[in-house]
Amino acid sequence: MNDHLISIPRMATLDREMGLRAEQRQRSLTKPPGSLGRLERLAVTLAMQQRRERPRVDRVQCVLFAADHGVCAEGVSAFPQAVTGQMVANFAGGGAAISVLSRHLDAALSVINVGTIEPLPALPGVQDARVGPGTGNIAREPAMTREQLARSLAAGDAAAESAADNAAELVIGGEMGIGNTTAAAALACALTGALPTDLVGRGTGVDDAGMARKRAAVRLALERHGEGREPLDALASLGGFEIAALAGLMLGCGQRGIAILVDGFIASTAALAAVRAAPDLRPWLHFAHRSAEAGHRHVLGSLEAEPLLNLEMRLGEGSGAAVAVPLLRMACALHDEMASFSDAGVDHGSP
Amino acid sequence: MNDHLISIPRMATLDREMGLRAEQRQRSLTKPPGSLGRLERLAVTLAMQQRRERPRVDRVQCVLFAADHGVCAEGVSAFPQAVTGQMVANFAGGGAAISVLSRHLDAALSVINVGTIEPLPALPGVQDARVGPGTGNIAREPAMTREQLARSLAAGDAAAESAADNAAELVIGGEMGIGNTTAAAALACALTGALPTDLVGRGTGVDDAGMARKRAAVRLALERHGEGREPLDALASLGGFEIAALAGLMLGCGQRGIAILVDGFIASTAALAAVRAAPDLRPWLHFAHRSAEAGHRHVLGSLEAEPLLNLEMRLGEGSGAAVAVPLLRMACALHDEMASFSDAGVDHGSP
Repeated sequence: MNDHLISIPRMATLDREMGLRAEQRQRSLTKPPGSLGRLERLAVTLAMQQRRERPRVDRVQCVLFAADHGVCAEGVSAFPQAVTGQMVANFAGGGAAISVLSRHLDAALSVINVGTIEPLPALPGVQDARVGPGTGNIAREPAMTREQLARSLAAGDAAAESAADNAAELVIGGEMGIGNTTAAAALACALTGALPTDLVGRGTGVDDAGMARKRAAVRLALERHGEGREPLDALASLGGFEIAALAGLMLGCGQRGIAILVDGFIASTAALAAVRAAPDLRPWLHFAHRSAEAGHRHVLGSLEAEPLLNLEMRLGEGSGAAVAVPLLRMACALHDEMASFSDAGVDHGSP
Repeated sequence: MNDHLISIPRMATLDREMGLRAEQRQRSLTKPPGSLGRLERLAVTLAMQQRRERPRVDRVQCVLFAADHGVCAEGVSAFPQAVTGQMVANFAGGGAAISVLSRHLDAALSVINVGTIEPLPALPGVQDARVGPGTGNIAREPAMTREQLARSLAAGDAAAESAADNAAELVIGGEMGIGNTTAAAALACALTGALPTDLVGRGTGVDDAGMARKRAAVRLALERHGEGREPLDALASLGGFEIAALAGLMLGCGQRGIAILVDGFIASTAALAAVRAAPDLRPWLHFAHRSAEAGHRHVLGSLEAEPLLNLEMRLGEGSGAAVAVPLLRMACALHDEMASFSDAGVDHGSP
């Protein structure tokens, strides 16, 4: 198998002509021009992405990748590593935040195990695509081999293909992995040149001693393999199986012309790695929220992203993206259903 | 009739004990403590307001008041005054932004004409409660008499009573009235001591000359009747029938223990007048969004309000509040449906 010869797919292009038509439609609707703010721009962007004047976000696919992290050996998390697998069972059982939100939104939820430390018993709705028993401890060794990177990216791409088969109009990528804010911080430092103090945050809630260990682990990881790497090398050295799978998912969606709603710090870091590898992916990304996790602001800045929400969320799982879905749906409903000035017999303004 | 002897009702109290129970429940759910950010605090506040451990926001009542403004004679708006009545027909016909959003949210929408310049033909779903043929031109005379203020407040209170009869779990107040950002700016200046330059914005989109006229009109209004008034006097001198009705709606909801989701600049200015008249109203108010209208930031600051959204909306009609409803619903769904650590067999963290 030649999987480790990774080729980056070519991204689909946006339909600019459809964007102009959608803008024209927005101007005809019974409201002062621009008064729906970002909801107007969302509708226009979705029109360009979906290549239709009146976009819809009815069919939403959430894809959640779970994996473990060797860096937990450095004492970087407030939760024991077993929680990754326990939470996979909770996703399947319907009790996790993303499970509740997916139900509420009538969105499909796929859970894909790309690398818990132990194999998990078969669970309904959970796919087994384990790339390894957790990553290597990035403070001491590379997170994964080039071949494992290729398999992680391929797991993401397969999920994108499945979303395309299901005619998904929007894809959300989520993650679960105890220790993964440490990996994401190291990866984001390598990609942006930022310092660990800028990007290491409290994750699920470590105390001050845990924060010090986390910063030290990121520093060690960067000293060992943080310099001058191209994005996929950085992803292999410092990332995680779920982070690489998220990057693969986004690249696969961009290739197939499916809009992506990016979640918080970890998903945004995966997006950054993917955009560095394929800059034409950027127009396919919507950013859902500004997480309370310290490093997110910096990663969003590198992506020139202005997220829709700022609710101080920091849960992961794709939960922040799920919470933003109704905004996209309402943008589409307004764009589709509002009356025009002429139809409603309302006088235009003359500013 | 003694309507002009206005008595401010006593506000209901929040159930603090229920708040503690809701907080305890939040801590038991399978997520790092605090990781749902403002969604956690929303659920707890709604629990206190609704006096139940698991609040719901299924039944939402939108109440939209329309009225005209004499100050339009000063050339303060980009739209002709006839648009107020035309938009009432558009609300009834289902083509306005708030019509689309109400349908999308399965929320009830009541439209109440409290004072268009001309009487309107009977329209399905539109109540006629005209207090007068538009307000007086505040640059020259008081907006309304004390008796008209009482009738406007009573129209709002009647809508709150109707919401209570329908067991509404959340009320949204919206407004339509060409010229009403000028009235709201004058009222907000009188209530906060701010200067017209701080609070006068472009409204529906006036040009620079219109802005100059708008600022001049507000200055004249404040010179004439802006000084040292108690809040209801300021509302009568500078407000509008729909602004006073919104204040009456909020006071009526606070009295009956119904949570209110406040929209943008005009609704927030009505809220400020109402809170100044009855400070115990404040705990019943959620703030939906930060409007792009310049004065909103200042009014929100006076209310110590941190809105949920910042989408650069500036439409009015209650549209910004409607867009925030799914956030409250998802906060309730997460609070109600997530599994606890013990039920899901997930290990607690040890931060």
